[in-house]
Amino acid sequence: METVRVCLVGAGRAGMVHGVNLARHVPGARVVAVVDEREEARRRAAAELGASADFPTLRDALQAAEFDAVVIATPTYTHRDLAVEAARAGKHIFCEKPMAIDAEQALAMIEAARSAGVVLQIGFMRRFDEDFVRARALIEAGEIGEPLFIRSTTRGPGLPPPWAWDTAKSNGMLAEVNSHDFDCVRWLAGSEYERVFARVRARKAEEPRRLHPDFYDVAVVTVELADGTLGAIDGACPSDYGYDARVEVLGSRGLLTVGQVPDGTVVQVTQDGRVTRQAFRSWRDRFRTGYLGEAREFVECVRTGRVPRVTGVDGLRALEAVLAAVKSIASGVPEPVVRHAVAAGEAARR
Amino acid sequence: METVRVCLVGAGRAGMVHGVNLARHVPGARVVAVVDEREEARRRAAAELGASADFPTLRDALQAAEFDAVVIATPTYTHRDLAVEAARAGKHIFCEKPMAIDAEQALAMIEAARSAGVVLQIGFMRRFDEDFVRARALIEAGEIGEPLFIRSTTRGPGLPPPWAWDTAKSNGMLAEVNSHDFDCVRWLAGSEYERVFARVRARKAEEPRRLHPDFYDVAVVTVELADGTLGAIDGACPSDYGYDARVEVLGSRGLLTVGQVPDGTVVQVTQDGRVTRQAFRSWRDRFRTGYLGEAREFVECVRTGRVPRVTGVDGLRALEAVLAAVKSIASGVPEPVVRHAVAAGEAARR
Amino acid sequence: METVRVCLVGAGRAGMVHGVNLARHVPGARVVAVVDEREEARRRAAAELGASADFPTLRDALQAAEFDAVVIATPTYTHRDLAVEAARAGKHIFCEKPMAIDAEQALAMIEAARSAGVVLQIGFMRRFDEDFVRARALIEAGEIGEPLFIRSTTRGPGLPPPWAWDTAKSNGMLAEVNSHDFDCVRWLAGSEYERVFARVRARKAEEPRRLHPDFYDVAVVTVELADGTLGAIDGACPSDYGYDARVEVLGSRGLLTVGQVPDGTVVQVTQDGRVTRQAFRSWRDRFRTGYLGEAREFVECVRTGRVPRVTGVDGLRALEAVLAAVKSIASGVPEPVVRHAVAAGEAARR
Amino acid sequence: METVRVCLVGAGRAGMVHGVNLARHVPGARVVAVVDEREEARRRAAAELGASADFPTLRDALQAAEFDAVVIATPTYTHRDLAVEAARAGKHIFCEKPMAIDAEQALAMIEAARSAGVVLQIGFMRRFDEDFVRARALIEAGEIGEPLFIRSTTRGPGLPPPWAWDTAKSNGMLAEVNSHDFDCVRWLAGSEYERVFARVRARKAEEPRRLHPDFYDVAVVTVELADGTLGAIDGACPSDYGYDARVEVLGSRGLLTVGQVPDGTVVQVTQDGRVTRQAFRSWRDRFRTGYLGEAREFVECVRTGRVPRVTGVDGLRALEAVLAAVKSIASGVPEPVVRHAVAAGEAARR
Repeated sequence: METVRVCLVGAGRAGMVHGVNLARHVPGARVVAVVDEREEARRRAAAELGASADFPTLRDALQAAEFDAVVIATPTYTHRDLAVEAARAGKHIFCEKPMAIDAEQALAMIEAARSAGVVLQIGFMRRFDEDFVRARALIEAGEIGEPLFIRSTTRGPGLPPPWAWDTAKSNGMLAEVNSHDFDCVRWLAGSEYERVFARVRARKAEEPRRLHPDFYDVAVVTVELADGTLGAIDGACPSDYGYDARVEVLGSRGLLTVGQVPDGTVVQVTQDGRVTRQAFRSWRDRFRTGYLGEAREFVECVRTGRVPRVTGVDGLRALEAVLAAVKSIASGVPEPVVRHAVAAGEAARR
Repeated sequence: METVRVCLVGAGRAGMVHGVNLARHVPGARVVAVVDEREEARRRAAAELGASADFPTLRDALQAAEFDAVVIATPTYTHRDLAVEAARAGKHIFCEKPMAIDAEQALAMIEAARSAGVVLQIGFMRRFDEDFVRARALIEAGEIGEPLFIRSTTRGPGLPPPWAWDTAKSNGMLAEVNSHDFDCVRWLAGSEYERVFARVRARKAEEPRRLHPDFYDVAVVTVELADGTLGAIDGACPSDYGYDARVEVLGSRGLLTVGQVPDGTVVQVTQDGRVTRQAFRSWRDRFRTGYLGEAREFVECVRTGRVPRVTGVDGLRALEAVLAAVKSIASGVPEPVVRHAVAAGEAARR
Repeated sequence: METVRVCLVGAGRAGMVHGVNLARHVPGARVVAVVDEREEARRRAAAELGASADFPTLRDALQAAEFDAVVIATPTYTHRDLAVEAARAGKHIFCEKPMAIDAEQALAMIEAARSAGVVLQIGFMRRFDEDFVRARALIEAGEIGEPLFIRSTTRGPGLPPPWAWDTAKSNGMLAEVNSHDFDCVRWLAGSEYERVFARVRARKAEEPRRLHPDFYDVAVVTVELADGTLGAIDGACPSDYGYDARVEVLGSRGLLTVGQVPDGTVVQVTQDGRVTRQAFRSWRDRFRTGYLGEAREFVECVRTGRVPRVTGVDGLRALEAVLAAVKSIASGVPEPVVRHAVAAGEAARR
Repeated sequence: METVRVCLVGAGRAGMVHGVNLARHVPGARVVAVVDEREEARRRAAAELGASADFPTLRDALQAAEFDAVVIATPTYTHRDLAVEAARAGKHIFCEKPMAIDAEQALAMIEAARSAGVVLQIGFMRRFDEDFVRARALIEAGEIGEPLFIRSTTRGPGLPPPWAWDTAKSNGMLAEVNSHDFDCVRWLAGSEYERVFARVRARKAEEPRRLHPDFYDVAVVTVELADGTLGAIDGACPSDYGYDARVEVLGSRGLLTVGQVPDGTVVQVTQDGRVTRQAFRSWRDRFRTGYLGEAREFVECVRTGRVPRVTGVDGLRALEAVLAAVKSIASGVPEPVVRHAVAAGEAARR
């Protein structure tokens, strides 16, 4: 395949990050169509990305345009239907995190991609960030011995979109924001989740709380992995002070940390004696190379048939842990992480 | 009182930190006696501290020497008897953390000090560390808004002493090492504990695990406070890479962190491109000014009758949370923190 | 102009950085030809950059290929002839630093570009680095008051190429490496050079020193600017420990620093208590976005006719200061910086 | 000698730092007398330090009080007379930096101490700071290879006292503030000064400039050492943003830096995305342990007869470099550093 022709489904903020990367910064890819139910958004996106066509639905695009792959960057509750539809049409699939609303949806996506023989990659871009990659390589090289305890923190600058406030449509912040942490802890430990315990609070956002009594914006989760590793995941949203994504791995022979807050190396010292640096304001800035890396990975996998470094099973495993955490919020006690069987050959690549 | 004459009870490592501070660096204090059942240890300590007498037991010291105050730095399970004995003899009391083995012991110590009218201060030296003090002042000044989430980490360089491996004599690492964290989270939040959930592992130390099946050396605890603040406390011991004591407070309007790992400002960049600083190797180095500050506080309170900034009730409150965490380890579910009533006027000063 | 067609002149390391950026990462640009006297180098470069033709000389390329602009990344002593030849053929010019060997060459280049009406941009990529841009903006906004003292340091990981060891062909490290510092100090101060004093040593590289008695690899320069700002520029090459480019601006109301050494946010703490980060190993990594930014600037200026943010006059002004520094090395005393008149409208844009 | 009885000469800010250290924090020392021409200052100091007597002049103190040593912390132009008088009376001498106004004065002090057989220590407290000591030890251990370039910066928070504005009474900021840098570069290089070149500006302080046309408050000095090491010393005063003392040593196999600006480990991240730490506000805070260390050194040398780690010859060598820098300011060209012979056995200990 000479050039991978991509149909972007969802022209919101995350969708445009992928769209711009594919249109401009990934050799061998072009964005040829944009799907979004909002007419103005899809028109503007198509113009910016050099796409020759735009459509209100994926169905329309499948009928009217020629392309090889879809990038799905729509609300979580739409992922399953879109991915299954794309797979049946033989299109390769890049799908944003969280993968789906429940395990059945995720399994259906994995099965649809498997039977169609198409690539299915999930948007855990931290796995392509240089710092996270370096940390993982140091762990694999045995530099800190056995992982004993892993802490992963994500705080987002803004409120999640309104549909994510509603627990009927979303698993909330632990899914929409912290699924990155659930993926990272598992990836860095090289082990699967066994049990989680979650506590949450609604402390910041007034409106979502009023509309949805289950809404929360501060969370802390204890995680237990099969190899004995303990972990703690915490999240808060909006954090106001910027985008903060950090991980700390305590090993039997040392410590690794990734992702302190300052953005850039400018240090200002003021007359009142404050030594000031700038925090990252956005996930787009913090993970610029990570987003670019995952787009390149996807295009390469589509062209070569290679299995991507982040598969549907990786999406499923993170989702299973999120679901157990959501259950723990309600039950007030630790909950086991239910691990679903997948077809042989679909095991997560790490 | 012109000079506060101190009897040091326990001439081990922590005891000698207090002894040296009181003998040399705190104006208005003198170490006049040393108690330790190990003859050589007490002789050497007395010589180093300029104390004129040494004794195998506190009883002997009370009979034969004149002093105003005791500093108790012996194993935790001996604190209650020593403190009660000192109080009955009218001696002011500085007692190392953790305060005692159970709440009844702690309550007995508080009551003994109350009825004797003597000072009772617990050794939470972090409250006197310049960084922690500054963080607390920034929180009180509203600089980060309301605390939402507090994380506190302590990792110690060496194994706890053998008596602390035995759950009959000690509440383990959560008490011996992490009671500082339990005190700090409560102090920084300005709120009381309601519920805790703890998970632990034995991953590093072979010998203690063999002798005591309940021994653990990695722990993570979720804490819930009365005002809605969530927290996470984690510990590991020995950490090998040094002494690491950090706290992070997420507020509704900003973030505060205390205590990154490097010791000193020397940065070395080597031919292989490694930019290297030095970690703190010991709590003595990391909290040098904290230890000095609490010694000064104690002497000042003895001289002036002022209530110390860390009271027996503070020791009790941290212990109550540790006890609930220990119970949670066994039960596998969250446990409420049982808060014991104390006499009016004994409420913790913060 | 729809797409800017570029002929890359010089397929060495710096040339390939520009080539890859223009071929892949700058919308609206294509590399259509490669010039290098080394056949294998130009063939490989053309293949990698998707260029349809390669030539041993610029003259050949001008005769046989169609393009709009040249990127000159050859040894310094060839810049003038290449730039003048390109200008006469009506090609826009991006030229690597240092601009030329002496002021007459630089003036000839400026005049050739002026009379041909083509863009002439010099490769001071730090002006497009996010950190340097932020620092400059903070200074312009008055955040640190008036600049009083500016220090700029560059240390390079490897030896300069052999032609740069020879003072007949090069002004040495102060030109090849530190011309960035000479540009930055002037740019950040917003003032022109008046006088410089330089001291150098040959301490590291054995072979160049043996071949060329004037060779030096450690340097420190005092600079005086017209507005009263003092500065210090220092350089060393090779530095072994990595690529180190830093600037510090002391203002009348605060301090700004840019460019501490660590690359990335991974911190490793090892059993011996060393807290380790990674240094930048190469200017390509440190200034990745700077190189990309200057390529985008060049393409935009070619397309719009806008004057670039780094002009030939900027190249001239840095060169004049370097030349005075080189003279000071020989004379042992401070030397005035001779400022050459340029045609109106050619004043440096800052 | 059981206890070293000290007479403090000069009860200003620096004097009180020494006084408090000797009175409270140095075992084996007592402050028994205070000399200051200002009655209220000496009375208050004596009370604070527990000294039993105070006098308007050293002569009075020598006649009326018994003591073993003097600590001289008066204006520089008085050092020689006080030190010579003390030496003739057989008193050991600790003298603040800069040692004296000219080399003849310094030589007279060295000779007086030598013939009286008393200790003469100069107040270069950085040599006792843990960071500087660690840096020096790393250099001596060969960790960075041969020193090639050393940069030393000092910026002070406040204006020097009025007598130091007057070039008849003082060598200005390079002496009063930067003599620490002149000492440190020489100490860290392990080599002697050969030549210096200095440029200065008056940019900040209005009043001193009006009163004294030679006054300056920004300076940069190029230094050349006998072993080929180059260096740059810079200073500014007042710096407003705090006290800033840093040194950077580039070696043939690596880099060492000491003394970044933040004070403490508290990091605050605010809603506007600023990551803020606190700068050191004062030399008293930054070099607390350095001041304490030099006081201990002095007392130990007095008690044991050992030669101090910072001798009169060290004071002389730094002064010689300052004097050459002052000469260079006037001449506008580099000036050789004139090295004065001292009696055998008086060579600087390093």
